[in-house]
Formats: sequence, structure tokens, C-alpha cells
Amino acid sequence: MVVVEKDLVTLNQDIAGQEIGIPVYRIFYKQRSDKQSFDKKTANKDNANKDALYDLSQVKSTSKKQLPKVYIQSAVHAAEMQGSAVIFKLIEQLKNLTLHAEFTLVPNCNPFGRTQRAGEYLQGRYDATTGNNWNRFYHYEPSDVVEFVETLTEQQISLIENGSESELVLAFKSFLKYKFGLKLDQDWGVNTAQFLNTTLQEIAVDADIVLDLHTGPASTHHIYSPEFLTQSAHAFNFENIISIPTTFAGALDEASFTPWVYLAELLKQKGITLNYKVNAFTIELGSQENICLTQAQSDSGGILNYLQANNLIDGFVGVTPVEVTTTLLKNYKTLFSKHAGMVEYLAKPGDKVNKGQVIARVLNSLEFDTKHAVVDVTAPESGTIILHYPSAAVQVGTQLFKIAVS
Amino acid sequence: MVVVEKDLVTLNQDIAGQEIGIPVYRIFYKQRSDKQSFDKKTANKDNANKDALYDLSQVKSTSKKQLPKVYIQSAVHAAEMQGSAVIFKLIEQLKNLTLHAEFTLVPNCNPFGRTQRAGEYLQGRYDATTGNNWNRFYHYEPSDVVEFVETLTEQQISLIENGSESELVLAFKSFLKYKFGLKLDQDWGVNTAQFLNTTLQEIAVDADIVLDLHTGPASTHHIYSPEFLTQSAHAFNFENIISIPTTFAGALDEASFTPWVYLAELLKQKGITLNYKVNAFTIELGSQENICLTQAQSDSGGILNYLQANNLIDGFVGVTPVEVTTTLLKNYKTLFSKHAGMVEYLAKPGDKVNKGQVIARVLNSLEFDTKHAVVDVTAPESGTIILHYPSAAVQVGTQLFKIAVS
Amino acid sequence: MVVVEKDLVTLNQDIAGQEIGIPVYRIFYKQRSDKQSFDKKTANKDNANKDALYDLSQVKSTSKKQLPKVYIQSAVHAAEMQGSAVIFKLIEQLKNLTLHAEFTLVPNCNPFGRTQRAGEYLQGRYDATTGNNWNRFYHYEPSDVVEFVETLTEQQISLIENGSESELVLAFKSFLKYKFGLKLDQDWGVNTAQFLNTTLQEIAVDADIVLDLHTGPASTHHIYSPEFLTQSAHAFNFENIISIPTTFAGALDEASFTPWVYLAELLKQKGITLNYKVNAFTIELGSQENICLTQAQSDSGGILNYLQANNLIDGFVGVTPVEVTTTLLKNYKTLFSKHAGMVEYLAKPGDKVNKGQVIARVLNSLEFDTKHAVVDVTAPESGTIILHYPSAAVQVGTQLFKIAVS
Amino acid sequence: MVVVEKDLVTLNQDIAGQEIGIPVYRIFYKQRSDKQSFDKKTANKDNANKDALYDLSQVKSTSKKQLPKVYIQSAVHAAEMQGSAVIFKLIEQLKNLTLHAEFTLVPNCNPFGRTQRAGEYLQGRYDATTGNNWNRFYHYEPSDVVEFVETLTEQQISLIENGSESELVLAFKSFLKYKFGLKLDQDWGVNTAQFLNTTLQEIAVDADIVLDLHTGPASTHHIYSPEFLTQSAHAFNFENIISIPTTFAGALDEASFTPWVYLAELLKQKGITLNYKVNAFTIELGSQENICLTQAQSDSGGILNYLQANNLIDGFVGVTPVEVTTTLLKNYKTLFSKHAGMVEYLAKPGDKVNKGQVIARVLNSLEFDTKHAVVDVTAPESGTIILHYPSAAVQVGTQLFKIAVS
Repeated sequence: MVVVEKDLVTLNQDIAGQEIGIPVYRIFYKQRSDKQSFDKKTANKDNANKDALYDLSQVKSTSKKQLPKVYIQSAVHAAEMQGSAVIFKLIEQLKNLTLHAEFTLVPNCNPFGRTQRAGEYLQGRYDATTGNNWNRFYHYEPSDVVEFVETLTEQQISLIENGSESELVLAFKSFLKYKFGLKLDQDWGVNTAQFLNTTLQEIAVDADIVLDLHTGPASTHHIYSPEFLTQSAHAFNFENIISIPTTFAGALDEASFTPWVYLAELLKQKGITLNYKVNAFTIELGSQENICLTQAQSDSGGILNYLQANNLIDGFVGVTPVEVTTTLLKNYKTLFSKHAGMVEYLAKPGDKVNKGQVIARVLNSLEFDTKHAVVDVTAPESGTIILHYPSAAVQVGTQLFKIAVS
Repeated sequence: MVVVEKDLVTLNQDIAGQEIGIPVYRIFYKQRSDKQSFDKKTANKDNANKDALYDLSQVKSTSKKQLPKVYIQSAVHAAEMQGSAVIFKLIEQLKNLTLHAEFTLVPNCNPFGRTQRAGEYLQGRYDATTGNNWNRFYHYEPSDVVEFVETLTEQQISLIENGSESELVLAFKSFLKYKFGLKLDQDWGVNTAQFLNTTLQEIAVDADIVLDLHTGPASTHHIYSPEFLTQSAHAFNFENIISIPTTFAGALDEASFTPWVYLAELLKQKGITLNYKVNAFTIELGSQENICLTQAQSDSGGILNYLQANNLIDGFVGVTPVEVTTTLLKNYKTLFSKHAGMVEYLAKPGDKVNKGQVIARVLNSLEFDTKHAVVDVTAPESGTIILHYPSAAVQVGTQLFKIAVS
Repeated sequence: MVVVEKDLVTLNQDIAGQEIGIPVYRIFYKQRSDKQSFDKKTANKDNANKDALYDLSQVKSTSKKQLPKVYIQSAVHAAEMQGSAVIFKLIEQLKNLTLHAEFTLVPNCNPFGRTQRAGEYLQGRYDATTGNNWNRFYHYEPSDVVEFVETLTEQQISLIENGSESELVLAFKSFLKYKFGLKLDQDWGVNTAQFLNTTLQEIAVDADIVLDLHTGPASTHHIYSPEFLTQSAHAFNFENIISIPTTFAGALDEASFTPWVYLAELLKQKGITLNYKVNAFTIELGSQENICLTQAQSDSGGILNYLQANNLIDGFVGVTPVEVTTTLLKNYKTLFSKHAGMVEYLAKPGDKVNKGQVIARVLNSLEFDTKHAVVDVTAPESGTIILHYPSAAVQVGTQLFKIAVS
Repeated sequence: MVVVEKDLVTLNQDIAGQEIGIPVYRIFYKQRSDKQSFDKKTANKDNANKDALYDLSQVKSTSKKQLPKVYIQSAVHAAEMQGSAVIFKLIEQLKNLTLHAEFTLVPNCNPFGRTQRAGEYLQGRYDATTGNNWNRFYHYEPSDVVEFVETLTEQQISLIENGSESELVLAFKSFLKYKFGLKLDQDWGVNTAQFLNTTLQEIAVDADIVLDLHTGPASTHHIYSPEFLTQSAHAFNFENIISIPTTFAGALDEASFTPWVYLAELLKQKGITLNYKVNAFTIELGSQENICLTQAQSDSGGILNYLQANNLIDGFVGVTPVEVTTTLLKNYKTLFSKHAGMVEYLAKPGDKVNKGQVIARVLNSLEFDTKHAVVDVTAPESGTIILHYPSAAVQVGTQLFKIAVS
């Protein structure tokens, strides 16, 4: 029997003291007498004991086979709502599929951005008091990984040398969670974005697959995949993949896979091979300020296809493959406006454009009586338009287009 | 020879003292030796002498035949930019048509809203410090009209009784302009929206035709027309006309025609018939945050068609008539959301809907595991969807749809 | 025994479906076996039956003596927080005083404004999507009063003629509450400010005394009192009273007393004298974006003094009287800036100023090398500075000062 | 004769095409026939020839003795206006002092932030469309310095070995300005903050002394000084100095001195000693959203005192020395709130506090009936309160205080 459990993890925000929560859904296969309810302690700030030394021996190997875990969140940029519609469609469908994994799904995961209106739109991209991008303050400290490796016992190392990684994996996840707790609990505190992001990581850290659902401004579908996963990312069946290096710039996908890449590197220096990696992606589901349940059904198909390709579910009917283009991050370029004015976007998300092609024109109302009334904007290189700015009103330096240069 | 003159009317705004202007274009037919340059005093704050009594005798009748005047402005709500593109297209075309009128065109007429960003969009609908809607503080005082009528001389009245209205019309315009000056110059000052709107009126008051170009949020084309002009408004060739009563609620169209309606009423009480009225409309050109020059060409066609129908231009090729529906303002209704959540708009601007039809659905991420995940929103009455809210993120009381009820 | 009961009245707001509430405290004297818990139905949207005609006979006279009721709310403009500190101090003190009334206290009564950050400040003055001032959409319809008077039975009228007003008062309150329910329940819905304000009125309508706690931007203490209460308002012991006419402009104080003034007027036309009136005030407790518990102790003293003067409590030690100045609303004037620039406010809230006195100077950084670098702003009339704008950065039309002209 | 020249450097911003400028003042001693007018090309975007290789030989040594240059700007965070008042006072005073340097003064240097209102305040801290902090996008690329050193000719090196640095200094400034031009001129453009900051650097790069005038939110006066200048920074006579390492985090002070520190380091590796360094400071002049000309007179005194101590002016009467405390950046700590609520700041900017002292209390309106109504915030360590958050309304993670830990 597939079970859907719901919990509300509170992230106290309101100046009146009103607790505001993020809904967390867990979907799993439950046998007869299993008692496997949601562990409310995951987001509990009180149980981190910062004075205690971390004791790896506390992490017991469990005889029971652990199922893989999948974590999916949406709308950490609050106006990027289509991911929440996709999570709704995933819940509908997962209930009727065969599950070989446990799922944790967190729609509308940002209670700070969720209430921040800016005119008729939702300004959920950054903390309105600081400008901090809500997707740039996840925790990753390379020194944590070093510290973990230093505490490994002979016994743990011999286990992994004998091909059994699972205990080490469990221990490292537990260690990372312990570090998240320490960070949230420090005397001087953390900023709001760190508080939000690290709290989300406390839930996400258990997962083997992490999907962070976003959208662009006015955008076509695309996926950020770490280089080592671009091949497997084809299974999502979205037309465009941006291949990013395994470095950390603050986002959840990077914060999820980078510690494991570095752990493997450090172990390799000791002659030990670690095969396990967390697979993490940022998935961009079209345009912000918009939801469409019909499109969400299709979007969720790509995710289910990926899950099935990785043996995490069974019974999904599959998708009609599309042609996929992979672009290295260094070739995924931003065209900033050189003019202030009103812009008509001639090239649309998904369009292929050639170098020199007019892709936008800027109207300058002070020059309506001269030949400078309309200024053409041309593509500096050939490629695919992935997204453009959502408004016609631009200033010098506005991010007009992002183009996957071919 | 058709001449295009440009001036920058300054509206000092910037805290550094930077003068920020609005471009004002004047287009007219200029004979050989005419000297008819733009009167820079129109927006001059210094020349209103508040201590002087207004002297109607100063307004001289001019032997020279006055051409009708047309005033068109756009983007007083700064994100409603399509009107500026339409003005650009009008300038292009008017240069090549035969003009029987003089044109004053003011694109991007709101320098306060024009620089007010809110996230990635332009919050140009209201003064960010006060919430004052930039389209609600135009000046109209019924007592001004009463005062004017009281100052009329026997001679002026006899002229109008003899069928010659032009001198009276000129005198009333001059009187209104004098009142605008007094308002702007008063000791205690005026608020920012009053300052902007009254300054624009100082330019617009000379016109016989006033067009205020707006857009809706996500909207189909429509026109607000005073009841007494709905028939002539058909010439704009936009599908939907909202017929409004001749009362004043703060907008430019109302501020333009209401004084004349009331003047005619007061004169009628004296047994005098005044036929002259200013014809004023608010024209809604689709959706905000967007410009499209191709669409602007088509939009300008409707305006040129109206101008030609009123003998103000010649030589325009005309339009293919569309079917026009007129709705009384009392039947133009707003549907406010009863739910907070993420909305998918199923009915689109321009769609005809039936009472009870599901026109939107609200997704509630706290109920993804219950039957309350999706709540249907139905049309309370049958009619045409004119516009909907521009974002999927709504709270209780958000203006979801405006519907022209049939 | 004085009892403090707390309830959370939900005003569903969050796009994730998160219910966000306003804390409502009720303080009353409870005898042995009284069961007098907070009536949760007050804010229940579902129980208004809009098809049913209103049946006044349903309102039963109760043999039990009703205690007077006092309603106090704060922070409907969310950044005006000092009132919440004052409510905290009132709760502390009321517990130890003798109560002859029942108290309903609602701090932080605006869950929409409470979460709306704008840079480092709280933009809780107006709905960020519409510009609607949160203190201008309370419900008052004169036609409601007319309708109520028309439904009065002979019996009800004879009761009041015999000096017993209480049943009629109860009936009118019940009628008003019924009208609030209808408004909130109508098919086309209401806007967000109407939703908030009318919901608050459903709680406030039972009260005989209504206090709406606000602050100014940078402000001294002052009170808005209806003309007929200015004498009794002296008991609040705040230096400045603004005496307002008994007309309706959208605020809670007006919405509270206006229906009763009009009801008395209509009854008087029938030869019946109604003495009962709701006493309602807007109290301005200094400056926004600030709380001070020490000051709150002092501020609450004024309110307790008023309550004791009106026999609603006993045992308060009293205050040291200050000199009170009353200013008619027509003499409470706003000075709007005629210049954009950076302003130094030389006159401070509470200062007496003379006509012509330099009360501010505007610095213009484009004129640092000329004698126009600093422009003096003078008081147009003599009076008391009540408040000034909270920022040095002003544009033309910014509300620089409000002055109680003497 | 001391001359004040003014120019308006345009930074085209407005969507209508309105050019908006920053006033740039130059103050210098002008002899009889000097022709030394402001070089308008400094901010000219058109004259960078990106195809040309940079030719150091173009930089001619000039026989004429160069005077030292001082660059002072204010309000790159637009609400931090007191620096503009200080620049006004500096201009007043410099005219009457003996100058041994040339001064370039740029008040209100951020035309983007200057017009960005957020409620009643000015949100000029970050780009409203991106969250980019306007003080974090100045240009510094270590590889530029490497490239410069590689291009040095034998002749240039021998000059410096012989104790003549001035030609090299001039050459490096010219090289940096060339790099700024390349950056601004690149095909794909730069973001708005980069555009603003790099344009300001084109003006500032000529200076030997760079002062960037800021304020804190609610703050006492303090100075950020690079470690190597903390001793000389005492001459500013402000109570608190924060000593920062010579690394680059995006601000103007760092962008000004870091290239010279790195250049000296690279030359040292070649056995060459470069003594020249740009002296750059960020000066925090109290609180934002405020100007006070009286205080500005005092603040300017500190700056004049520093200039006189460095032989850049003569004739200033001097200051009464205050006691100065220097704190290493690592000991300048931020206390983030652990609670959402309304905060009363008990410790004020400038106060010395002890570890464990209650420095703020948070009021939670949902707990007014419990002992959790008020939560105390204590100082985690002893030190001096430098600043606190400007609003009582805080969320979890809000930057409550910054404390110079002793």
C-alpha cells in the first residue's frame, strides 16, 4: 500500500509570532505492520548538542535494507510555482505506481518569499531586506569533509574496501546533518537565507536523488546537471541540458553533490574508491508567475521517466523522446542590455538564433522623431534562446537573454 | 509640410536634483512662414499669478481659424507600455497623412512610475510612498464650472446664443488652465500624483479629443467611453466598449469631458445650448509589461480610423471592421478571489464564458493529499472575460477577473 | 477572577494555503460557573445565510445585564507597532484592576501587511498589489441604517420611547454584523482590504468603545476624535486632539460611530431620541518602525485613565494631566514638498512653529556650487508640528509635515 | 584661485530614454592661464578600442609635476545620504583652504538607487531587479595585474629601481582605466551594478586617496580601513575603526587599494620595491534615511583633518581628538535574530556592552498571556554596539546588531 503522509515543518517568520510552515509530503510503500511515520525531528532545532563531540560510532549499521530516497522541492524562488503543480501531479501518479524508493516532496518550500508581494507580482527571488538570493545560501564547507575523513575508523575504511559503502554513506549523511544543526544553533545566529536553506538541507540530506524545481523568467524548459550526470539527465526528456562543473556556488543541487565528489576525492588520495554520489539537478520548468496543470502532467512525465530509468519506480508508461542538446556552463551566456528603454523580444525561448540576428529591439521614446527611435539588439553568437527578461522595461545592464551558445 | 516638434517638459523628481522630463511631440501642418512652435509655457509653474483675479477679458478672440487639437498620452501607469509603441506608430503614419488637426503626443508621461522597479517588473501603477493610483488625481472641481458661468458677460452669452461657441470654448479652456496653475502653486502644495496629473492637464486642456492609452494586466483590447460617445467609439474598431457615466472618479478621460458636460448643464439652466464637448476615452491596449511593434501598427489603425471618421485626418486606408460589444459600467464586474493559492486561469482574455463555467482553478499545496487540492472558480454570470490578474499567486480578495457581463 | 482568553482568528493568506491568524485576547471578570468563552463564530464566513431575510425578532432581549464592551486593535498599518506594545501593557495591568467591562484586544491585526517587507522596513500601509490603504475599506453604508429603521417594530420603538435603549442597540449591532456577513459572502467577492477590514468589524461591532491604535511616520502623540467626543477625549491625556466631523472616509473609528450618529438622526426625524453612541477614536502613538515598552507603559496609562473616567475600570492610579490642544480637522494641514532633494527636518514633532519660520531645508546636490544648494522650507502658518516624513529623500509632492494650525 | 567645476556624467537609465546623470565636482587651484577643465572623456563609453592592443608607450611621462588627487563619493547606497551633506560642507570649506591636491567629489553617485522608493523609504542598497548590492560589483581582476607586470619594459623597471615611481604609477592607472573600458564595452555587456561601479572607477582610478562615504542603518560613526592604513586612519577622528585585510570582496575601497598591494607583491618577487599605494577607506557617517548639516560640518572636519595630516590641504583649524578603538574585521560580528517579532533595541549604537547583557527584547503578540511574551536577546560577547537594524519588525535571521567585540 502506497501511503502519503503530510507534515507541516514550521519556519517561524511572522512578526506577530505566527508560525508559518512548509508542507512536507512523504510517499512510501508501507507493509502490514510497518511503523515508518515522518520523523519530526528532522527540522527540530533543539536537539543539536553543539557541545558534544560528534561520535560516528553512534551511527549504527542497520540490518534492514534501506530503500533509496528521493527529495524534490519547489518554489524556493517563490514566484516559480510550476514546480508545485508538478509535485501535485507526481503525488497523484506515484500513488498508483510501484515504488522502489521513498519520496519526500516539498512544494512552496519558501515561506519568506511566498508572502513577499511586489506590485501585482511575487518578489520571491531574494530576501527583500538584504537582496540575498534564496538559492545561494545552502551550506557546504570543504573543511567538513576533511574533518569527516579524519574521523574515519580503520573498521569503516575496511568495510568500504570490501565493497560495502552503505555504512559510510549513512555515516556521512549523519555527519552533515550534525553540521547543519551546529550551524543553525550557533550563538551569533545565521541570516534568513541560511536559516531557510540549511533547514531544507536537514530534510534533503537523507536523499540519494535531489531535484530542485525552478522556472526561468520567460523561459523554455531546461536542466542544470553536474558534468558527471549529463548522460543520465537525458532521461528527464527536456530539450536543453546545461552541464555545470562540480563546484559550489551556493545552490541546492551543488550543495547536494559537491560534498560527495570531494569525499570521493579525499578517499581516493588514501587509495579508497567510493562509488556513491548524490544525484542532484536543478530543473527549470518554463516561466515564472504561472501554473498550468496540463503542462504539469507533461513535466511530471519527464521526472517519472528519469525515476524509472534509475529503477526507483515501475509502471510508468514512458515518454516520447525529444532531441536533447547539452551546453557547457561556460557556453551558457547572458546578454546584458546596453540600452535603457522598452524592449520587444523578437526571439522567443526555445528559438535557435544565428550570430548577428536581430533578437530584440529597444524603443526609446525620446527619439521617436529620429532614426534612433528603434535600436536593434543582435545575437553576439549563434545558439538557442533559453530565456529572456520578463518585462519590456529595461535599464542598462538588465539581463535581456540567456543563450546556450552552440 | 507636416512638422514633428519635440520638447522635454521637466518634472523635477530625483533626490539629487536631476530634472527628469517627459517627451512631448507636436505634429501639425506648417505653412510657409508659420511660426507655431511649441509653447513652452504650458508647463511653466512660475507664471501663474495666484494673487491676480482671473480676467476673462484677457482671452482674445482670434481671427485665425483654430484647428481642432488632439491629445494622446500613454503609460501614466508606467508598465502599460504598449501605448508608447502605438504613439511611435502614429508619429510614423501621421507624417504621411493629411492633417486637419494638431496633435500633441506624450509617450511615457509618468517619470515617477517609469523608474520604480519592483523585482523584475515595473511598479508604475501607484505612488510607492502613498499607494496613490497615478490615474486618479486629475483635477476636476464642479465649483470651478459654477464660478466660470457666474463670470460670463452678457456679450459672451449673446455670442453663444447666436451660434458661435468658439470664443466661449476658448475662454473655458483658458479658465481651466488658470485653475490648474492655481492648484499647483498653492502655499501648502499638492501631492505627487496631483502634481503629475495636473501638469499633464495643463498640456491636455487645449485638446478637443483626449486619448489616454493604457493596458490591462493580462487583458484583451477594450475602451472606456462616456455614454454619450459610445456610438462614435465604434470607429476605434476594438471589440469591447465599456460605457461609463459622465461622472468624475479621478481619471483623465473623466476629467476631460466632465467639466464640459456640467458646463452645458449649467448653461441649459439659463436657457442656453452648448453643443461643444471634449471627446475623451481611455483605451486599453492588451497586456502590461509588454510591447509589440507589429501589434502597435494594428492598434494605431483603430485610432487613425477614429480620427478619420471625425474628419481630423485624411488618407488613412481604413480597417476591417470587427464586431463591437458595448457593456454598461455597472455590468463590468470584478471577481475577487475567495481563496489564497496558486491559480491557473482557464478562461483567457476575450473568451466568452457561461454562468457556472469553471474559469480558473486554485491549487492549495497544503491539501495535495486531499480532495481540496484543487478548488474550482466559476463564472458568477455569463459574459466576456476582459482581463485577469497577471500572476498565479493570489491572496483572498485578489482581483482575479474582470468580466463584461452580457 | 479576571480571565485572559486567547484565540487565533484565521485570515487565510498564504499562497501555499497556510492559514495565518490574528491573535484575539478577551479579558473579563469571570464568576464561579460562568461559561463565557470567545465566540469563534464571529469570524466564521460560512454561517451567513445570504438568502434568508434578516429577522430582527431573532435578536432576543436577554434578561442578563450586559457589561459594556471595549475593543482595541493595533497595527492595521503593520509598521505602526507601538500599539501592540501598548496592548501588551494593557493586558498586564487589566489583570490587576477592577473591570466593569469586557475587553477584546487585537494586536498585529493585519496579517497581510505584517509580512510585506520593503527593503529593511515593513510596508504595511497599503495592499502592495493595489495601493489600497488598509485603513480605508471598513464598511459603512447609509442605506443599511435606513433599512434598519424601516424594519423597526412598533414594540421596539415604544421600548426606546420608554427609555430602554438596550434592546434596540443590541438589534442594530446584530443587524450590522449580519450586513458584514452578507458583504463578505457575496458571489463576486470583495477586495483584500475589504476582506480584512470587514472581518475586523465583525469582532469590533459588539463594542461600545473602539480604539484603533496607530502611529505616524515621525510623529508626536495625537488622537483623532469625533467632534462630539473631543471633551471626553481629554481623559486620554495626549497633548493633541484632532477633532473630526462625523462623516465616513473609510477608517475604523468613523465606521464605528457614523452608523449610530445617522441612526439617531433618522430616529429623531421620527421624534425618537436615541442617546447611545459608539465612542471611537484613532490614537497615534508616536513614530512607526519602533517599539518601546517603557513608553508603552506610559501610553497605556492614558488609555486606562480614559477607561476609568468612563467607569469601565477601577483602581488605576491615574495620570499627571498634560495640557491638551484641540484642532479642527480643517486646520490640520499637510505641507507637500515643492522640491525634490534631501531634506533636513529642523522642526521636530511637537514643536510649535511660527508662520514663515524655516522648518526644513532641502539640499540639492546638482547645485552644490551655487546659492541654490540649500532651499529653505518655511511654515505657511503658525501651529504645532504633529509629524514629518520619515525619510530625508523626498520628491515633489512628498508629504513633508502635518501641522495643527493654531 | 580655487576653482569649483561641475559636470554631469550621464548614466542613461530611464526606460523613456531620459539621461540621468551624476554630478561630479572638481576643486583645484588654478593658476593664471591654466586650462585644466574636467575631462569629459572619463566616462565616455565610445572611445575604448577593444581591438587595439594596449600600448604602454602611449603613456607619456609628463614634465609637469602632478598634484595628488583625492576622490570622494557618497550614497552609492542611495539612502545613505549624510555623505552628500558632508560633500556639500567639504566644497564650502575647501574653497577657503590651501590646496595641495585636486579633488573630485561625487555626491548621490547612484542614479539607479536614487529613484527606487520602497514604501516611504529609499531602497537604494541593491538592484531591485536582481538583489545585487550596489557596493559589491567594482572591478578587480588579479590577472590584470599579472598582465601589466608582464608588459613592463626594462626602461620602466629601471626607472622605478632608481627611485622614480611616478611614471609606473601613471602607467598602471592608465592600464586599469583601459581595462575598465574593455569591460564596459564587451559584446555580451555587464550587469547594471557592474556598469555603475566600473563607470565610477573610471573616474576614481586617477586618485591617490579614495573615500567612499556610507552610513549604517541605525549606526554610530565608524571607518573601514585596510590593515596597512589603520594608524593613519586615526586622523579621521572617528571613534571606531574596523581593520580589514587587503583582500577583495567587491567594494570600492578594496577595489582601489588591492591592485596596488598585489602589484607591489609581484614587483617584490622581481626584487623591486614599490612604495606607492592608493589609500582608500569606507567611512560610515551614522544612520541612513537622514541628513543633518550641523553634523555634516563636524563630519567634514574629520575628513579635513585627515587631508591636512597627509599634507593635502593647509589652513584647517583641526579637531579635538577623540579616543579611537580599532577592531579586526574577524572581531566585528553580526548578531542575527533567532526570533521573529517586534524588537526593542535597548543597546544603542556606540554603547559598550558586556557578554550576557540584555541588549534587545523581542515582543511576540501571540504570547501576550504567557511568560514568553517578551524574549530577551543578550550580547554573546563584550564589545561596542556599532549599529542595529533600522526597524522593530524582524524575522528569524534578521541582522539585529553588529558588534565590535573587544
